[in-house]
Amino acid sequence: MNYKMVGRIIALILALEAAFMLPPAIICLCDGDMTAGFAFFLSIVAALLAAAPLGYIGRSANQRFYAREGFVCVAFGWLAMSLFGCLPFWISGVIPRFIDALFEIVSGFTTTGASILDFVGDQPRGILFWRSFSHWLGGMGILVFLLAVIPVSGRSDGFTMHLLRAESPGPNVGKLVPRMRETALILYLIYIGLTILDFLFLFFGGLSVFEAICIAFGTAGTGGFGLVNSSIAGYSPFIQNVCTVFMLLFGVNFTCYYLLLLRRIRAVVRDEELRFYFGTVLVSVALIAFNIRSLYPSFEETLRHAFFQVASIITTTGYSTADFDLWPSFSKAILLSLMLVGACAGSTGGGIKCARVLLLFKCLKRNVRLLLHPQRVQTIKVSGGAINERVLENTNAYLSAYVIIMVLSFIIISFDGFSPATNISAVFACFNNIGPGLESVGPTCSYAGYGALSKLVLIFDMLAGRLEIFPILMLLNPEAWKHK
Amino acid sequence: MNYKMVGRIIALILALEAAFMLPPAIICLCDGDMTAGFAFFLSIVAALLAAAPLGYIGRSANQRFYAREGFVCVAFGWLAMSLFGCLPFWISGVIPRFIDALFEIVSGFTTTGASILDFVGDQPRGILFWRSFSHWLGGMGILVFLLAVIPVSGRSDGFTMHLLRAESPGPNVGKLVPRMRETALILYLIYIGLTILDFLFLFFGGLSVFEAICIAFGTAGTGGFGLVNSSIAGYSPFIQNVCTVFMLLFGVNFTCYYLLLLRRIRAVVRDEELRFYFGTVLVSVALIAFNIRSLYPSFEETLRHAFFQVASIITTTGYSTADFDLWPSFSKAILLSLMLVGACAGSTGGGIKCARVLLLFKCLKRNVRLLLHPQRVQTIKVSGGAINERVLENTNAYLSAYVIIMVLSFIIISFDGFSPATNISAVFACFNNIGPGLESVGPTCSYAGYGALSKLVLIFDMLAGRLEIFPILMLLNPEAWKHK
Repeated sequence: MNYKMVGRIIALILALEAAFMLPPAIICLCDGDMTAGFAFFLSIVAALLAAAPLGYIGRSANQRFYAREGFVCVAFGWLAMSLFGCLPFWISGVIPRFIDALFEIVSGFTTTGASILDFVGDQPRGILFWRSFSHWLGGMGILVFLLAVIPVSGRSDGFTMHLLRAESPGPNVGKLVPRMRETALILYLIYIGLTILDFLFLFFGGLSVFEAICIAFGTAGTGGFGLVNSSIAGYSPFIQNVCTVFMLLFGVNFTCYYLLLLRRIRAVVRDEELRFYFGTVLVSVALIAFNIRSLYPSFEETLRHAFFQVASIITTTGYSTADFDLWPSFSKAILLSLMLVGACAGSTGGGIKCARVLLLFKCLKRNVRLLLHPQRVQTIKVSGGAINERVLENTNAYLSAYVIIMVLSFIIISFDGFSPATNISAVFACFNNIGPGLESVGPTCSYAGYGALSKLVLIFDMLAGRLEIFPILMLLNPEAWKHK
Repeated sequence: MNYKMVGRIIALILALEAAFMLPPAIICLCDGDMTAGFAFFLSIVAALLAAAPLGYIGRSANQRFYAREGFVCVAFGWLAMSLFGCLPFWISGVIPRFIDALFEIVSGFTTTGASILDFVGDQPRGILFWRSFSHWLGGMGILVFLLAVIPVSGRSDGFTMHLLRAESPGPNVGKLVPRMRETALILYLIYIGLTILDFLFLFFGGLSVFEAICIAFGTAGTGGFGLVNSSIAGYSPFIQNVCTVFMLLFGVNFTCYYLLLLRRIRAVVRDEELRFYFGTVLVSVALIAFNIRSLYPSFEETLRHAFFQVASIITTTGYSTADFDLWPSFSKAILLSLMLVGACAGSTGGGIKCARVLLLFKCLKRNVRLLLHPQRVQTIKVSGGAINERVLENTNAYLSAYVIIMVLSFIIISFDGFSPATNISAVFACFNNIGPGLESVGPTCSYAGYGALSKLVLIFDMLAGRLEIFPILMLLNPEAWKHK
């Protein structure tokens, strides 16, 4: 293990985080909120003080950088980022208990959007900005940002790839262009461009600059922290529809946008994952709209709520315009199932990802065929390209880990005595980075009622879900720690 | 597809089923219950009438018999067996609706034990006997029985193997002895021996002959149909403990008993699946006993109920001595999770099976290691023996199919409006062949409230669960139907 290099990367992450805390600090000062402003100032100092020795040790790091270093950097980087990122909440007194502050910021960075705040609207604007900003930073990944903008001297392409692979969602992270660093840059530029577009729609739709920025951050990162308790329900139908459209757009594999920029439209249309994603959305909306037709006065309203909630859940954003816990069981069942599916690989959304669901379906189909013809060699193709067997193995292992972690989490958090539906949906909602669940953790409730142990488990789930399990599992694997 | 041979096997199954309906018919006549006796008589005639033409066509069948013929025989065999096996319930008027009668007998044969009868104790003894007997027949498998006792002229060893593999639970059905037919015979002799032992304990524990036979059938098949609404709660602690022990014994891989008969005790002790199975049971009992300690007056009673329910759920029997729906959430969460694990491969229990859970864990561990060392070739070993990659692939595909079928079933049955906890537990309980779930389908309730579509879905789940998915998926695969 190249500890020095890991230290160096974490130092860079913390320095970057300190810089990112400046905008909310400035907002606090402008609002005259000195307590919150001072909390941000202290947090910035703490992050820099922690970064300094790590950076100093990391100066003499050699260039040996393999997959395990990538995983460990990502896992520790996210932990460090969360530990320092929660300080403003805690120091300002907005969230008095440290575990709650940690839960809130992990929920932010992992773009989950599950909150322990019972009353959101009363909080200082700087704090609300930091919550929403954390979604945006976590959405595309802070290491991807690091790689895209900050030159780490002498780094090789392999170095960048190992980090990108470990942080980016999806079974098969590819290069858009020959150099990985440029890939990271292109991804971020698309991300920034789409966010600005979203902001403009929201702003011209009647929101204030502050509201438009925060909601755009939450949508872009598919996070889901709102500015008021009612989430998006209080905004106009136009704003709600803008959110629906942009949530869906941010759930698309960003590679598709790059292909569109290159005018390779046929490749986008042929993309099986994209078809699966939009197909699932349309079928779900149709079924739910039919199921809830008697709950709303007009067809427009029914369709708007159905579309919004489906987009919000499948992209794992977690905004809501209606309390879907009051919807009929059939609609709730569809939404719970969509939590598992999740958005496309290479988007900012969470869940198993459409690409993996597709691969699992194809593996299953191949297995049935292999039972009939054991001798025939069969490769699996997606969008016309053959899939490496290692990717398939990894996808299957992902599903196993997914089920095992969910079951164990469910058992532990059940100790707090909530109903099975609450507990199952809490694990679903945190692990898949969605936010609201059902019953006691429904769209109008918070996670404040859970005990400290349950919150730790859910924090683990959120991180494991966002980082796609393996970087976190790697930390538990003694082999990763051996000196070679 | 060798249709003639499939027809011949199904004819044999139906003839065998007709013979198996004789004992309940005789019980009805002894009790003077002419309606039920006549219903059994009519059902026997119907089964024989259906068997005759199939057997006639099958006379000239050739010996071509591959995996697909094995799967199709098993799937159609079980369907035919269920369609005719439900006739006594329906004709006698005990269950007036055909779909309910079909649900009840599929629940019997698949050893699920989920019932649509609201009042069990009032039914004729012949009917109750047939319910329990169906568990015993389905437990080890009717085709295994067929292969063990009835000489099908000229059949090859491959023929027997394909049928055994398709019907027996577990990822890796092996031969105990060089000839598959003798393997089937040995399995059944062990099964019969253990059932007789169970009967003796129950009989000398104070039950009547009829009660002891029926409860022994239900325990041996890990089925769970009781003779009274209160399941096993009304019997003495001794009887309850006998049931606990025998449920656990019938959840063990029968190969272990064969090895014990050969005095190869070390091989049994080294068996990883067996250790995992008993380890899971002990840990679960300890956790639940601690969690429910305040609900019962004495330590003995707490431990007895905890042991009984854990044994009943992990072996997927479904008997109950306490309404665990009233237990704390933590205990319910453990029981729900045990539903997934299930008993050992090669036992009469359902669920994913301990062997598969072990394999999935090992695949996951290998995958983490492969991420670190992509070049290293690593085989997976269980109890010291290397596992074929095809078995691993199949196990992974099993998990995918398992999750996909559960999610789709959950969505469809949610249309009836029950709570998510009811629906999730109903699918868990049926697919894993357990029986009772939570809330509206809890241990003291029945499945009568679901609509016809939901019942069809749950019937599908029970069959898919008992036959381990692939024979049922094979029926949906057009390739299996092609003439070569």
